[in-house]
Amino acid sequence: MRKIIIGVMGPGDRTTASDLAYAYELGQLIAQQGWVLLTGGRNVGVMDAASKGAKEANGLTIGILPKNDRNSISEGVDIAIFTDMGNARNNINVLSSDIVIVCGMSTGTASEVALALRSNKKVILLNNTEESKAFFTSLSKDNVFIVTNPREAILTAKEIGDFA
Amino acid sequence: MRKIIIGVMGPGDRTTASDLAYAYELGQLIAQQGWVLLTGGRNVGVMDAASKGAKEANGLTIGILPKNDRNSISEGVDIAIFTDMGNARNNINVLSSDIVIVCGMSTGTASEVALALRSNKKVILLNNTEESKAFFTSLSKDNVFIVTNPREAILTAKEIGDFA
Amino acid sequence: MRKIIIGVMGPGDRTTASDLAYAYELGQLIAQQGWVLLTGGRNVGVMDAASKGAKEANGLTIGILPKNDRNSISEGVDIAIFTDMGNARNNINVLSSDIVIVCGMSTGTASEVALALRSNKKVILLNNTEESKAFFTSLSKDNVFIVTNPREAILTAKEIGDFA
Amino acid sequence: MRKIIIGVMGPGDRTTASDLAYAYELGQLIAQQGWVLLTGGRNVGVMDAASKGAKEANGLTIGILPKNDRNSISEGVDIAIFTDMGNARNNINVLSSDIVIVCGMSTGTASEVALALRSNKKVILLNNTEESKAFFTSLSKDNVFIVTNPREAILTAKEIGDFA
Repeated sequence: MRKIIIGVMGPGDRTTASDLAYAYELGQLIAQQGWVLLTGGRNVGVMDAASKGAKEANGLTIGILPKNDRNSISEGVDIAIFTDMGNARNNINVLSSDIVIVCGMSTGTASEVALALRSNKKVILLNNTEESKAFFTSLSKDNVFIVTNPREAILTAKEIGDFA
Repeated sequence: MRKIIIGVMGPGDRTTASDLAYAYELGQLIAQQGWVLLTGGRNVGVMDAASKGAKEANGLTIGILPKNDRNSISEGVDIAIFTDMGNARNNINVLSSDIVIVCGMSTGTASEVALALRSNKKVILLNNTEESKAFFTSLSKDNVFIVTNPREAILTAKEIGDFA
Repeated sequence: MRKIIIGVMGPGDRTTASDLAYAYELGQLIAQQGWVLLTGGRNVGVMDAASKGAKEANGLTIGILPKNDRNSISEGVDIAIFTDMGNARNNINVLSSDIVIVCGMSTGTASEVALALRSNKKVILLNNTEESKAFFTSLSKDNVFIVTNPREAILTAKEIGDFA
Repeated sequence: MRKIIIGVMGPGDRTTASDLAYAYELGQLIAQQGWVLLTGGRNVGVMDAASKGAKEANGLTIGILPKNDRNSISEGVDIAIFTDMGNARNNINVLSSDIVIVCGMSTGTASEVALALRSNKKVILLNNTEESKAFFTSLSKDNVFIVTNPREAILTAKEIGDFA
């Protein structure tokens, strides 16, 4: 039986300290729920922090990597999926996540939010700018949820998720 | 020798009348410059209007289709590329365009702008909301250009394009 | 730390009884080694049988699905990755497998063997025709291994695998 | 109105002299029919030779490139499509071709033949080994056509093509 997968997406570089701290805590909390964590899998930024947080809490972690390169995988990733399709893999990230939690913002992350909304996925925005919150809410009133800390993100995920 | 390709991206459905009129004119003007037009290739919305505009001006048109379906191609498309990779094809759209001109906004279009900026492509925004202009400018000061009509889009493309 | 992933690939339809029996046994044996099983994830043919075999032996199973469709997943799949990229996902299947074991043959399976060899992956052929064995050996003497039963496939995987 | 596209696929490296001579002639003959040529777009092997042949005969040429790299495009390519998806782009090559003509054989080419047959495309094999002809015929009696020179390939394409 398919396990519940929660995606955590955010910047790989130019992350803020709070992006990384929140991502680590998100990873922990997701693991504590018994959910599988999915990220972009690289050994940088939000994906790395979330994966390490989930492992600290004994979770299972999936990394969907943009290249076919075994040297850029986060140590926190259990299952590495090598796509070799660059940023087009962002669509796989969001399609494979039951819910997408976004922590911070960047051009790559913005593509993930947009692709998620394009496929009617629910997206939870944490640590986002006013511009980002205003824009994505204008694109989709119904599928964008704004939270202020990782615990609220998890509570929101449980509320909006279609987890039997 | 590789020809210059200009991408026109915009909503497939829920387009406004001005989105469609501008897209048609963009197609015409791109063809008149001797540039090749690239769109998402379907027979709806901005991609359809731009392709028909380019054909009216005897241009060459490429459509990068999301599915492997010969019944949803715009009549204005000369060269249909069938990707069968859904919205992940949006990355191909922007990588294959020397410059991306965006006309209107939607979730799919937002993913194209974000993916273009992720790969350091220059993006010209036409007929966009304040939220969209503010957000994408916040993501990339240097690669986002805002214009108010199709002629200005073409002038901007010529100015910023790296066309020998 | 990344886990070892063994891919089992084979026909989805027009399978023989021995294809299915071997696939089930391969799934069991892979799980017993502590390896993760990766398949194409659908609820048919070799991918379904291998996934169910691995679950029977308490293994962990990944399915890389061609569409974004939650109704066609094998019951034996724990982690469903939705690519929505049709048969192009076959490249992800092989890139993400440390070793590819092929059980039976079809057009889709042939593409996986060819893509695996293209990326210098080692491929173990089980239950293949003379034409298949002759062709793939002619393409790559060094990376094609021919076995006659599932136990031999596992022994070969252990011998040729680069598992520390 | 969509133009007819004929794909020519074959090895990028380790080509034989006859692979290259046949590929060049195929490009010329395809252009003379008024068909568009589609190849893998790189500046090596069969794709390069076919593209140059088509340009010598004033044809239109498309190259579907595996990377996002402007330095590896064949001089014979008019329209460069940058997929940045590695060998997964082979599926786009075959889906976008009305008929696939294969000239020579390699692991990448084998994946294209298999993916073409997987999607019920007709494939014409030129300059192939006995192993290749035997294997692909065993996979699909109805969609594999074996020819002995470029002119026969074109005659066969006209006969089996669904070109109104």
